Amino acid sequence: MTTKVGIIVGTNRRDAMSLEMAKYYSQRLIEKGVEAVTLDLAQLPEDFAFSALYHNKGKNEHYNYYQTELDGVDKCFIIAPEYNGSFPGVLKVFIDGLRYPDSLRDKKVAMVGLSNGVLGNAVGLGHLNDILSYMGANVLGLRVKLGEIAKHFDGEKVSHPLYEKFIDEQIEKLLSF
Amino acid sequence: MTTKVGIIVGTNRRDAMSLEMAKYYSQRLIEKGVEAVTLDLAQLPEDFAFSALYHNKGKNEHYNYYQTELDGVDKCFIIAPEYNGSFPGVLKVFIDGLRYPDSLRDKKVAMVGLSNGVLGNAVGLGHLNDILSYMGANVLGLRVKLGEIAKHFDGEKVSHPLYEKFIDEQIEKLLSF
Amino acid sequence: MTTKVGIIVGTNRRDAMSLEMAKYYSQRLIEKGVEAVTLDLAQLPEDFAFSALYHNKGKNEHYNYYQTELDGVDKCFIIAPEYNGSFPGVLKVFIDGLRYPDSLRDKKVAMVGLSNGVLGNAVGLGHLNDILSYMGANVLGLRVKLGEIAKHFDGEKVSHPLYEKFIDEQIEKLLSF
Amino acid sequence: MTTKVGIIVGTNRRDAMSLEMAKYYSQRLIEKGVEAVTLDLAQLPEDFAFSALYHNKGKNEHYNYYQTELDGVDKCFIIAPEYNGSFPGVLKVFIDGLRYPDSLRDKKVAMVGLSNGVLGNAVGLGHLNDILSYMGANVLGLRVKLGEIAKHFDGEKVSHPLYEKFIDEQIEKLLSF
Repeated sequence: MTTKVGIIVGTNRRDAMSLEMAKYYSQRLIEKGVEAVTLDLAQLPEDFAFSALYHNKGKNEHYNYYQTELDGVDKCFIIAPEYNGSFPGVLKVFIDGLRYPDSLRDKKVAMVGLSNGVLGNAVGLGHLNDILSYMGANVLGLRVKLGEIAKHFDGEKVSHPLYEKFIDEQIEKLLSF
Repeated sequence: MTTKVGIIVGTNRRDAMSLEMAKYYSQRLIEKGVEAVTLDLAQLPEDFAFSALYHNKGKNEHYNYYQTELDGVDKCFIIAPEYNGSFPGVLKVFIDGLRYPDSLRDKKVAMVGLSNGVLGNAVGLGHLNDILSYMGANVLGLRVKLGEIAKHFDGEKVSHPLYEKFIDEQIEKLLSF
Repeated sequence: MTTKVGIIVGTNRRDAMSLEMAKYYSQRLIEKGVEAVTLDLAQLPEDFAFSALYHNKGKNEHYNYYQTELDGVDKCFIIAPEYNGSFPGVLKVFIDGLRYPDSLRDKKVAMVGLSNGVLGNAVGLGHLNDILSYMGANVLGLRVKLGEIAKHFDGEKVSHPLYEKFIDEQIEKLLSF
Repeated sequence: MTTKVGIIVGTNRRDAMSLEMAKYYSQRLIEKGVEAVTLDLAQLPEDFAFSALYHNKGKNEHYNYYQTELDGVDKCFIIAPEYNGSFPGVLKVFIDGLRYPDSLRDKKVAMVGLSNGVLGNAVGLGHLNDILSYMGANVLGLRVKLGEIAKHFDGEKVSHPLYEKFIDEQIEKLLSF
């Protein structure tokens, strides 16, 4: 299989668990012979909420690199931790900076929620689905919600059998979506 | 093409505009050589919220007919009018009566919102998407929102060019989803 | 204090845990000297989705009793179990049957979610909040989400200290809202 | 009346219509003898998504000014334009930077949606309500949704009588909430 798949790390927090989870997904994809490109929002220019949006759209070279990478895939995962009952604001800022309307249109997207609490960002994934649908993406029904993440993932290994199963199932489903 | 597609009329209101819209979709599908089966919730037994759920699941023959028809399609449209800021309760009751977990799992679903006001059930389609995702369905990104429906649809003809375009686009997308 | 508070049991499932939780809330309210009136949707006529809505609005005497009781309170709790990723369809049918627009307008409402899984109907309470806001109710920010309910509530006693605390806090907040 | 009310301009777009709408609300409040303090996210430091969050929480003096102003009010309006089917990411980044858990707890918040399209950010206000509830705020039921804003507001005068009515009603309700 030669498909390349994107993985968006939906936070700009340094050393985030979401980045580790992106690596985990990336590793699983490689094992299945699929190339993965990780887009880590923590590496965006610190002023991108101003320098890559509105009258500056398309003018921030560093941000444009993300746009180009996203343009190169037709499937992607979004890893979205739970902050204040939803996904990080910075993930929406990233989306607000994308070229419209074709950046996500007709792409296949799978959502992964992470949280320290039990919800696994269940509510935030609903919000995110609304936005992705607005962008014309087709979102995989299977939302993976990884609550109490610190208990079940040490940054390398997922120790919760159900979580492992759901992740594997989600990857399989996105690849054949 | 031999695919059969379902169309769920998401209300039990008699002579509902949603039923007319289902017929409109059905007609468009037939023109494309696709068979459509319409499931009109207004034809369900009046006590189905009690006689087809919980300890009665699977015991209401009339409701079971709907279940069987749904089992026979792997793609469907849901026509959902806006009542009190969301879709009709009766549509969720219908879903609550379905066999779980395989009734909608891995099916492709497209959502159509109708309203007298301007919103076209935008908020309710978000709610419905959450539920369909929970059921394991893959929901088409393109949500068709038909606001001020009485102005743009006389029960037979859609007079708003954009509405016509979105409906046609949605049908094409669901068929190739 | 003479305020009377409503408690809506948001399901029509017989012997539902939500009914037991309503009794629990009722007991706590009585201890604080507040009268509570419980509206159990399981006691509605089995055909009310047809006989109390649309052209039949206001014509179902049994349903009207619920309307009258609701008219008599300006604060209420809604106990909403999680079915298929949201609240029960029957709760929305009940709302769809209410006189509009003044049935809930300017009332204070607090939402309680119950589930066997961990979410405590977190997603469904978001949907419900949208609908209640549409109806003009002011919804208390504190949403009580009681996940894994069977583990923490035996139908009489809440054994999870945090759940007890949140319930007590929510009652206090609604009373002074 | 001596209450001071906050008005958050929920975007960092320069010369945004939301800023003009905030001024409109401010003017209406002044006419009612109420002081208003406007917090315009466009005036935040351009790197605040990095310099005011996570390990930098509380360290950005400029951002802290916003925090202090917010601490000084117990009621506020949030003006939220519709970007990509929801509110601007930057508004959530602002919230993600707030001190937790008391920044919005028990505060009364009213939401105003703006859009060029017809929706008036109806979907985004639902998302925002979920987040505000998570923060412990009590959100006014009446959501003002100002669709096709350019047609009905020239930056100074609201020319749509219903919009004027809803805005006035919302202000009255928040003041007496």
